Amino acid sequence: MKPSIPKGTRDFSQAETARRNYIFDTCRAVFQLYGYAPIETPAMENLSTLMGKYGEEGDKLLFRIQNSGEQAANPPEKGLRYDLTVPFARYVVQHQNEIAFPFKRYQMQPVWRADRPQKGRYREFYQCDVDVIGSRSLVNELELIQIVQDVFNRLGIGVTLKLNNRKILAGIAETMGHADRIIDITVAIDKLEKIGIEAVKTELAEKGITPEAIGKLEPILALSGTTREKLHRLAEILAGSEIGMLGIEEMSFIFNTIERSGILPVTASRPIDIELDLSLARGLNYYTGTIFEVKARDFAIGSICGGGRYDDLTGIFGMPGVSGVGISFGADRIYDVMAGLELFPDEAVAGTKVLFLNFGGGTNDTCDSPELQSLKLLSELRARGIAAEIYPDAAKMKKQMDYANRRAIPFVVIIGEDELAKKVATVKNMISGEQQQVELERIADILA
Amino acid sequence: MKPSIPKGTRDFSQAETARRNYIFDTCRAVFQLYGYAPIETPAMENLSTLMGKYGEEGDKLLFRIQNSGEQAANPPEKGLRYDLTVPFARYVVQHQNEIAFPFKRYQMQPVWRADRPQKGRYREFYQCDVDVIGSRSLVNELELIQIVQDVFNRLGIGVTLKLNNRKILAGIAETMGHADRIIDITVAIDKLEKIGIEAVKTELAEKGITPEAIGKLEPILALSGTTREKLHRLAEILAGSEIGMLGIEEMSFIFNTIERSGILPVTASRPIDIELDLSLARGLNYYTGTIFEVKARDFAIGSICGGGRYDDLTGIFGMPGVSGVGISFGADRIYDVMAGLELFPDEAVAGTKVLFLNFGGGTNDTCDSPELQSLKLLSELRARGIAAEIYPDAAKMKKQMDYANRRAIPFVVIIGEDELAKKVATVKNMISGEQQQVELERIADILA
Repeated sequence: MKPSIPKGTRDFSQAETARRNYIFDTCRAVFQLYGYAPIETPAMENLSTLMGKYGEEGDKLLFRIQNSGEQAANPPEKGLRYDLTVPFARYVVQHQNEIAFPFKRYQMQPVWRADRPQKGRYREFYQCDVDVIGSRSLVNELELIQIVQDVFNRLGIGVTLKLNNRKILAGIAETMGHADRIIDITVAIDKLEKIGIEAVKTELAEKGITPEAIGKLEPILALSGTTREKLHRLAEILAGSEIGMLGIEEMSFIFNTIERSGILPVTASRPIDIELDLSLARGLNYYTGTIFEVKARDFAIGSICGGGRYDDLTGIFGMPGVSGVGISFGADRIYDVMAGLELFPDEAVAGTKVLFLNFGGGTNDTCDSPELQSLKLLSELRARGIAAEIYPDAAKMKKQMDYANRRAIPFVVIIGEDELAKKVATVKNMISGEQQQVELERIADILA
Repeated sequence: MKPSIPKGTRDFSQAETARRNYIFDTCRAVFQLYGYAPIETPAMENLSTLMGKYGEEGDKLLFRIQNSGEQAANPPEKGLRYDLTVPFARYVVQHQNEIAFPFKRYQMQPVWRADRPQKGRYREFYQCDVDVIGSRSLVNELELIQIVQDVFNRLGIGVTLKLNNRKILAGIAETMGHADRIIDITVAIDKLEKIGIEAVKTELAEKGITPEAIGKLEPILALSGTTREKLHRLAEILAGSEIGMLGIEEMSFIFNTIERSGILPVTASRPIDIELDLSLARGLNYYTGTIFEVKARDFAIGSICGGGRYDDLTGIFGMPGVSGVGISFGADRIYDVMAGLELFPDEAVAGTKVLFLNFGGGTNDTCDSPELQSLKLLSELRARGIAAEIYPDAAKMKKQMDYANRRAIPFVVIIGEDELAKKVATVKNMISGEQQQVELERIADILA
């Protein structure tokens, strides 16, 4: 029987793991630079923590866990983490007395969903979430925008960050005279780019939105010009909606402050494009203020990062009125973008730098041998931080060289009996093919 | 209802996660220096991969997984990873055509066991395994010994590495005339330190070992002197056992090479103690050659690292005759040792270095404000790699200072209206209490 793994799960090879770690390490370094620190929660949560938090559909996609021993007797009481947001809310409530608020945390752990596996959709995948909870200040939104620029700048991915605000969407619905229909209206608007204005109008009419209301929406969707001009015009249109005006004020603060503070340096090698996108609506039931979505400019794939502000994350666990804002980086899609655009630097997968070939260790009574000499030098190299190894067996030279090539090791050191007698080593550059004889004392300097 | 997590699982706070990452990062850095690279396997494996691999007891401790949708209809087909060894064997067989052998891999991932939770025993915990498979050379054993010294030296833990060899144990049993009773004999020997020689002899007699055989064992257990002397004397006693002599030759090679190559520099701040321990027997059913066990010298806890050579790891998946050797670092116990001996360096938990207090951002029309000025400086600091943040709300100063103290942030920068007018900032050292006024341009230099 050929061994296999469950559908929708993946093994990651050494090269893949190294590249994934490059993405995680980059996120981690940036998050820490902005004052966020990591927490970890268990893979298993009580089912009571998870159930009912992701809608009916989500409940069906939970993986349930049973102890082998308990299996027959009892229904399962545990489930695998479905996302990092609900465990984070549970964590904040459970540990509220140990936490200094505002609580800035990031979390990078796998989650599991019993979705039908398909291209780009897995049953086990990582989420990288960064959130601050316990502050209503828009300074937090600004910080997350800086984090987005910093992460993607470091990764070399050119991105567009789309911003919207749930309050503006509420204001639009209110101004149309359909405050209660915000979801239908937003779902339709969301399709604007794909299906065009006429089809959007048809869909809204089919859903019972009055022609008069649709007439009020049309100029909003047609808004053009700079963000400042759009917000100015929108403020005139939504003037009668208190919540709409609040949303406009929030967006204005964010765009104004970015401009005045220069916190998004255009000198970045990959400066971010930021735009107001009134059709952006992700997680509408959940977000209450700013909404973020990031797309790669040069690679066609869904959003690679997104999030928003929520005003009542912890209410489900009995701690109401705590506002927070967060974003989540989609490591799998970021990986696909970087692989597609060949953005992974060589250092991301660099493993062993130097391989010592093995010409034998002699007998147990040998006091010097090619192998012994190589082991000594190897220790010196490692003490200087050079990743190095010796082929463990005195196999045929071709086999050892094949190993160096398959592992893409750039330097090979040869200490055979000849070299040992002359107290030298042959150093071969595996890329250029050049080789030179070097005194043993100089090896470490040459390879450092 | 107060939220909680399943028994035997843990949340890790920011300080705990940082300290745990310090251990993982140290292991990772050392493993890579020795030419090992990471792989990752899914948390879920097919039950057919896991069942029967850990004995009857192990089968009972597997956590089984069901999709919510499938639950009623079908028995579970998936289980959570119980260790990293079986998934590694499965990986090697499944991907054998993509792998360059000898395959040097490390893996740091959580495993799950439905053990009864108790102090120091969890249902979810990390393993850090480093293995090389596809080579019988003892150079691999030497390398793992160097890795042990390097990891614990970097962590600052003084350790004793005990070595033994399954072939020597087989030779002892053979010499006693009870080759088939190796397990009973070893189990008894294993208790020597705890219960003394007389009790060991009684136990052996009760198990039906002849007085003559016990008479042959006694001088072996009484062996003293240096490792070299012990091995020399043991070679005389086991001279009639081919497998025993092979084990002695292997141990001799390891001790001789360490001595002759100087690969374990005594200049290390925490040099390792290495000793031959004939009573060491871990994983006897599994290991076929060298056996390793590491204990902390200055802290009473079980072994913190261990492993050995196995000659048929992948045979269970249809790929026989591939020899390998590996060790596993016990992150949880290492954590306890380091916490107990206060070995975590301050840098291990260092988070934000600088907090800017927030004195308000003015209105949406303000073109300069304490907050705006702080945001500008903050960007400069971060661009220079200094972890910094601003308190997001213009809260009371006491509240902001409390936050800095609770998060142990060492520097606070104050830019109020006064400072803004004078184009200076007040920098307060939170440890010494000192504070000074500094021109804005000099802030980054002072805090770098």
